[in-house]
Amino acid sequence: MSTDPGILLARAGLARLMEPNDLTGTALVAVAGPVEAYRLITASTGTAPATEQQAVADLLGGDAGKRGAHRLDAGLERWRPRMDPAGPQRDLATIRRFGGDLLVPEDDAWPLQLNDLGLSAPLCLWWRGTAGPGHLPGPEALLAVVGSRDATDYGRHVTYELVADLVPRGITIVSGGAYGIDARAHEAALQANRAGHPADRPATIAVMAGGLDRFYPAGNDELLRRVESTGLLLAEVPPGTAPTRWRFLQRNRLLAALCGATLVVEARWRSGALTTARRASEIGRDVGAVPGSVLSSNSAGCHRLLREGSAVAVTDAAEALELLGITGDADPAMTWSPHGGDADARAHDGLDIQDLLLMDALPLRQAAAPDKLAMVSGLGIGAVLGGLSRLEARGLAEQSPNGWRRRRPT
Amino acid sequence: MSTDPGILLARAGLARLMEPNDLTGTALVAVAGPVEAYRLITASTGTAPATEQQAVADLLGGDAGKRGAHRLDAGLERWRPRMDPAGPQRDLATIRRFGGDLLVPEDDAWPLQLNDLGLSAPLCLWWRGTAGPGHLPGPEALLAVVGSRDATDYGRHVTYELVADLVPRGITIVSGGAYGIDARAHEAALQANRAGHPADRPATIAVMAGGLDRFYPAGNDELLRRVESTGLLLAEVPPGTAPTRWRFLQRNRLLAALCGATLVVEARWRSGALTTARRASEIGRDVGAVPGSVLSSNSAGCHRLLREGSAVAVTDAAEALELLGITGDADPAMTWSPHGGDADARAHDGLDIQDLLLMDALPLRQAAAPDKLAMVSGLGIGAVLGGLSRLEARGLAEQSPNGWRRRRPT
Repeated sequence: MSTDPGILLARAGLARLMEPNDLTGTALVAVAGPVEAYRLITASTGTAPATEQQAVADLLGGDAGKRGAHRLDAGLERWRPRMDPAGPQRDLATIRRFGGDLLVPEDDAWPLQLNDLGLSAPLCLWWRGTAGPGHLPGPEALLAVVGSRDATDYGRHVTYELVADLVPRGITIVSGGAYGIDARAHEAALQANRAGHPADRPATIAVMAGGLDRFYPAGNDELLRRVESTGLLLAEVPPGTAPTRWRFLQRNRLLAALCGATLVVEARWRSGALTTARRASEIGRDVGAVPGSVLSSNSAGCHRLLREGSAVAVTDAAEALELLGITGDADPAMTWSPHGGDADARAHDGLDIQDLLLMDALPLRQAAAPDKLAMVSGLGIGAVLGGLSRLEARGLAEQSPNGWRRRRPT
Repeated sequence: MSTDPGILLARAGLARLMEPNDLTGTALVAVAGPVEAYRLITASTGTAPATEQQAVADLLGGDAGKRGAHRLDAGLERWRPRMDPAGPQRDLATIRRFGGDLLVPEDDAWPLQLNDLGLSAPLCLWWRGTAGPGHLPGPEALLAVVGSRDATDYGRHVTYELVADLVPRGITIVSGGAYGIDARAHEAALQANRAGHPADRPATIAVMAGGLDRFYPAGNDELLRRVESTGLLLAEVPPGTAPTRWRFLQRNRLLAALCGATLVVEARWRSGALTTARRASEIGRDVGAVPGSVLSSNSAGCHRLLREGSAVAVTDAAEALELLGITGDADPAMTWSPHGGDADARAHDGLDIQDLLLMDALPLRQAAAPDKLAMVSGLGIGAVLGGLSRLEARGLAEQSPNGWRRRRPT
């Protein structure tokens, strides 16, 4: 990392003091810059002079400045309880001990799509994993696959099938490392990785709600270790930070913004996965939801998204790729669909009304003469004769000594 | 029926000669009226004088007249093969022997919503069944429930549950009398009828593709007899007419136009039920599709409608009623939803960001002092004290001699 060590330390420190998505905090950083913002907050410890606060408020400018002065009073006090001068240095040492580091917006490798979050963009990203942030693909190759912790066999199965089809096509599967759908998505990506995923990018990325010094939940320890060994783990909170309800909610906005699209495989009526979907939708990302049984409460959240119009139904890998703007045209294998329909129905495509009437009139076994066909079909004899030759050309009718009969499409 | 017997006979005769949705034919009837149209066609038998045809062409007027003259050449010839002067009288006698009759647009009981089909509206409706067309509800109480012939247990189950909830609320279930979803819908409606459906309207109506002198398919004979005994059967084709592919397709447009909305429970990628849905959509009717497993080819058609945006997902009876413009407000029983979410998640609705942070910081067992809570939550001491009293008021926090802890919502 060639980034200024002062910026790195300041952002590491700010990440300790400010909760994720603290808009007063990010506004201060946006206006004053990370180094000055950190200095202002830490300088204010105990006895922050009113003039200092006014200076920051002035930075926010004009009317906003007046509101800013008021909010900074609360804001600077709010950030005080967690201060620890040695903290940032220690956190950086910790993440490096785990083979990771801190990625900041000033780095070239910073994922620019996070800026779509505006003031809600994270202050920094702590990472660990052999892939490293230098190999992070663009958002068009990043799909968030999320869902219930208490997934059903159906949800697990569909997650596995979709991911197994997507990873060999170069898609990186991003999820939250939780039980259920998240775990299944990471797992499937790790397995599919052996079978053709580009070597220069991670098959899967886990975006965590707590610090990366330990894996949470503990039951996914082995899985997350495997994600680390070939992929990447990301968090906006420093090592040592516990995952809380608020941090889970805010982690979801990172998933949504990092990825080109979000796919919800299974979700209850109230589910964190829905907040990910809504955040994605708010910043203009496509959202997909996998339909399921209306009798399963684990699909109720997916159906809710579909009814609200905030997601489109996704039933296979090709439709998931469409969320990322990738259509099957480029890859003939992707144009395959399990829903080809029966040969009989397809054979009738493109017939006009009169020929359809004639088809209905044509007997299957005992052949019929054209005048009989005219009566049965309600068509004139001219239309019948013309239609019979068209149907014969399409292999749908055949002539015998006694007249005409239908031919089964082959 | 107080309708002019001449009109009745003419429409009965036209229904024999013209296939459903024969636009040349309906245009002729629209311009010349049913009696004159029937006279023109029957008079043209064998040697139709060119002047007679020109007169009809003139009726279509102007440029359309020139095109009309050309099309009538083919049209009048086309209607000739099936002519039978005694046919209409015989068909009327047949339907009356079955306790039914012929309903024509000139009757007061004619369902006006069929006019939304424009020139595609049927020439007449043959009916049988004890309910009679005089008790036909308005379209807002008619729901078409359609789907695959080879329904799965899932489709059958969902059909049953939905219909069993809808019929006691006064909804009449309209379907096509076929195997699978259709049969299940009729069956469920007949059963639910015993439990509270208004006595003055049929619980179920079958719209058939063939003549009403016999029940098709034969395997549904007993079911359709039961539909007849309390409900209604309708067809636009006269007795003795076989159901053909064309007539099935056209029957679907009647289902779509008759009902205020159409619900597709299960459908394959190519399915007649999709044509019903598309016809409904084209004439401005709401369409619902029941989601199902993406692994079931019997739900592929439903998902296709959802992806195309031609249907909304319907997962319960309340959502089916919404298709008809009926919301749950009027009936408290309908506002119930199985997806209430867990009490815990609901208890957090409406908390602001600071109180959510405070909730996360509150321990479940060992109580914590406010200054500890300030450090853990990252909030100032003022915000912590204010938040604690708000959470206490909502029953989410409780005070003990050693400080504060969380309270489980009851």
